[in-house]
Amino acid sequence: MADIEEILKRIQSHSGVEGAIIATSEGIIMRSTLEEQITVQYVALIQPLLMKTKKTLQDMDSEDELTHLRLRTEKNELIIAADKDYFMVGIHKPSP
Amino acid sequence: MADIEEILKRIQSHSGVEGAIIATSEGIIMRSTLEEQITVQYVALIQPLLMKTKKTLQDMDSEDELTHLRLRTEKNELIIAADKDYFMVGIHKPSP
Repeated sequence: MADIEEILKRIQSHSGVEGAIIATSEGIIMRSTLEEQITVQYVALIQPLLMKTKKTLQDMDSEDELTHLRLRTEKNELIIAADKDYFMVGIHKPSP
Repeated sequence: MADIEEILKRIQSHSGVEGAIIATSEGIIMRSTLEEQITVQYVALIQPLLMKTKKTLQDMDSEDELTHLRLRTEKNELIIAADKDYFMVGIHKPSP
């Protein structure tokens, strides 16, 4: 797996990105640019959601695989890249 | 609420869109351009996912609101616009 720091820097370099997290599929935090408490909150939100989405999609089409999940809210956007063993999150402040 | 047929036509008009569904937040199908069985499967997938996402985001920030959810898989992309009372789904075949 490419150097985690490299991946984190690349995510952070995109304009509007406020934070980046890398965690294992089980929700173990590998790296984060955010404070611990916020990181734990985001991973606690995203990990079960990702598992549920992956499972539900598998039920519909066992040959298909989730690659990305994007949650757009009124305040920001979570861009989640899902892999078999880990996931990456970019917290992004969309331009109004 | 603007004429449902109008909304459905607008979603369908986007290039690459293979289907469009409009359902209430409780999962009652209002309109669909897809076969019934596929529509029921998609709504059964999306409705609980949407409820879980909305709830989890509310737990994190009670003043924030989910507006869109995008699920990108290897085969297609589900673009879900979420409102208080209903949601709209565009099933989209992304260009390779």
